[in-house]
Amino acid sequence: MAEREIRVEDTVAALLESKKYASVRDMLIATNSADVAAIFERLPSEKLPLLFRLLPKTQAAEVFVEMDSDTQQHLIHGFSDAELRDVVEELYVDDTVDIVEEMPANVVKRILASSDADTRRMINEILKYPEDCAGSIMTTEYVSLRPNMSVEDAMLRIRRTGVDKETIYTCYVTDDNRRLLGFVTVKDMLLAEDDEKISDVMTTNIIFAQTLEDKEDVAKKFSKYDVLALPVVDEEGRLVGIVTVDDAIDVLQDEATEDIEMMAAITPYDKPYLKTNIWELFRARVPWLLLLMVSATFTGMIITSFESALAAQVTLTAFIPMLMDTGGNSGSQASVTIIRSLSLGELEFSDLWRVQWKELRVALLCALTLAAANFLKLMLFDRLSIVVAATVCLTLAATIVVAKIVGCTMPMLAKKIGFDPAVMASPFITTIVDALSLLLYFRFATILLHL
Amino acid sequence: MAEREIRVEDTVAALLESKKYASVRDMLIATNSADVAAIFERLPSEKLPLLFRLLPKTQAAEVFVEMDSDTQQHLIHGFSDAELRDVVEELYVDDTVDIVEEMPANVVKRILASSDADTRRMINEILKYPEDCAGSIMTTEYVSLRPNMSVEDAMLRIRRTGVDKETIYTCYVTDDNRRLLGFVTVKDMLLAEDDEKISDVMTTNIIFAQTLEDKEDVAKKFSKYDVLALPVVDEEGRLVGIVTVDDAIDVLQDEATEDIEMMAAITPYDKPYLKTNIWELFRARVPWLLLLMVSATFTGMIITSFESALAAQVTLTAFIPMLMDTGGNSGSQASVTIIRSLSLGELEFSDLWRVQWKELRVALLCALTLAAANFLKLMLFDRLSIVVAATVCLTLAATIVVAKIVGCTMPMLAKKIGFDPAVMASPFITTIVDALSLLLYFRFATILLHL
Repeated sequence: MAEREIRVEDTVAALLESKKYASVRDMLIATNSADVAAIFERLPSEKLPLLFRLLPKTQAAEVFVEMDSDTQQHLIHGFSDAELRDVVEELYVDDTVDIVEEMPANVVKRILASSDADTRRMINEILKYPEDCAGSIMTTEYVSLRPNMSVEDAMLRIRRTGVDKETIYTCYVTDDNRRLLGFVTVKDMLLAEDDEKISDVMTTNIIFAQTLEDKEDVAKKFSKYDVLALPVVDEEGRLVGIVTVDDAIDVLQDEATEDIEMMAAITPYDKPYLKTNIWELFRARVPWLLLLMVSATFTGMIITSFESALAAQVTLTAFIPMLMDTGGNSGSQASVTIIRSLSLGELEFSDLWRVQWKELRVALLCALTLAAANFLKLMLFDRLSIVVAATVCLTLAATIVVAKIVGCTMPMLAKKIGFDPAVMASPFITTIVDALSLLLYFRFATILLHL
Repeated sequence: MAEREIRVEDTVAALLESKKYASVRDMLIATNSADVAAIFERLPSEKLPLLFRLLPKTQAAEVFVEMDSDTQQHLIHGFSDAELRDVVEELYVDDTVDIVEEMPANVVKRILASSDADTRRMINEILKYPEDCAGSIMTTEYVSLRPNMSVEDAMLRIRRTGVDKETIYTCYVTDDNRRLLGFVTVKDMLLAEDDEKISDVMTTNIIFAQTLEDKEDVAKKFSKYDVLALPVVDEEGRLVGIVTVDDAIDVLQDEATEDIEMMAAITPYDKPYLKTNIWELFRARVPWLLLLMVSATFTGMIITSFESALAAQVTLTAFIPMLMDTGGNSGSQASVTIIRSLSLGELEFSDLWRVQWKELRVALLCALTLAAANFLKLMLFDRLSIVVAATVCLTLAATIVVAKIVGCTMPMLAKKIGFDPAVMASPFITTIVDALSLLLYFRFATILLHL
């Protein structure tokens, strides 16, 4: 991907340099809008207004939507009011809302002033919903039909009004009070007779979203039910908008990224890496490092309290990293597996016992294998006494079992009490398991080695 | 979700018990097929053949597709040849292929025998592509049009042949040699005049996939270009199938799950957690635990080689867990961020210097903050001598910088030499950083404390 784009970008720069504007225009028109946006972002920003004016109106709007918000803001500053109006007119309402949400107040004012009254009303309608809910990602531009229309009338309506709608392939059937009755796809209509009534063709068993439903839950419905759009209804069951599959994909991707970031003890931030400055990265990372550093000092305190035992048997110190690492790895294998399953909706809190029982058995298998392998190594290569080897291997086995049980339980408890399970991933589990493994280690050492 | 389903499932069981089959049928018909499949999977398997026979043909096929492969296999064993033919007839070819790929040879034979010659040819066509490429997730059921057709003819063709196609909304225009010329959407056609020619309405600037292209790259094109389907062409540019957005979503979700699993040192397996037995979980986890245990013994060897120094200054041992944990956490913050960015296509190997420069500055900020906080704590609470505190804090700062640089570099190098960057996540980074941080620790201790 990048290789091809870099070449196009160089060509564009060279053509601009030699003022071959018609050729640049032809090149850009032949390129997909998402790629044009990527090219624009890599060019020096002073060239953008000129380049942008070369694009035909519709493509200009498509390219505008795909650019990052810094570039958008830079362009808007250079726009005349007429140019801004041209772009805003071509945008879908949900895209305008996404842009408005990222802009400073003075730019938002200009965008709203450039919209017609109807669009302004729709923008404000969507803006009033909290950021994480279905209402905030929906669009209010959809085709609505009435149950007593004929298929022919419905198709005529689509042909007349469809050009401004984000999707026409799923149309929604409502009654006089805008209450959602069902949906009908263009495929259904094309395969039906012209004079059939919409109420006979429509599907009434509807998967829908509530305006205030978490947008991640809504996105998961797309992957579960394989739909191209979902209707969004308010508390009275009135249709207020639709969510389309392209927005659902973005939500699913962002959700996975957030989970991954939280699992690595990073506060999620929603910009691409190269667009995030070092202070933002610092703020996302340092609180967790501090917190985990403080908790790791407890592990240190455990070691301190056994200082005399360690001084008597310094060999024991050499196995601390291996025990801690293996415990941490075992725990994060379990926690990460459970976190992802919770995230995909495969597990519920009521499955806790089944999960623990499964992890217990897996843990015993892993513990047996690792302890046996380690015992052989300690006896044959390190030539340790059998009691020291036994102490290390017993600790290893016990640590693995404890780690897997803690690892699978914590995310499920977190979910139950309303926290994001992803917070309970590797770093936290590791800190807890470190402390537990050292306590076990010194307990076994005290008993077996009589320290 | 689960709560509602459990209730439906109990009702179904109760109705079955009292032989109220008509009511069960009505209930199931009113329920979405994906939910029916979930209900079926939770019922005792001996009830399934009876229940399945209650469903209307089309819904039966939809439910069948949504079930896990164990349940599918169980049902197929109970089917007569006629029943199997009924189900297979209703399935889309790409779904049939997905099922065939999971079944043992004798079941595959029965499924192929139940398909008509045309379907069998299409199944074999798709089966010949390797598992991870575009060809393996495509369907061969699409609408193809010719450039010289009128819009009216095209719409007629769709109405006549569309019922069997997975999507009709994007139609593909090919020449006499099946070479892909462009695509046209039903929206374009509905908004055009009936007598316009397809060649005038179609878009020729096509985003497409190659049969052997990695299916993850294909899925990413859906999220980048916001399309509902992508055409798949062979090396000669001939259209051989299409990939639809529902399959792309599955690939994106599976990909995120695989990345997460690999980041936690688990070999990816593609079943839901509760369907995976303990041996499969054991096999996915134990090799990594063993490997990482062996590498952690190197860390132990470093400690052993400084045993005399540690014996002289046992206090130093107490800070080993804190240093190792902070190093591991710092490193995995960087590596996980980079791995996800690589996965989303936001970074290329050519960005390596930019990434390292950014991580270096973030690392210095984090190092300064943590070292300062730790120094205060060591002086004020632990009342350590200033040289010991300095040794610990210098090591801490150096470890953070080293960890972040190693953490961001390793995944990019892995990608460059063709490995999956996700393998270079926390566990590996932790093991490497552990060793480095101990070496630094003992180096600083030797110099500052004259050990």
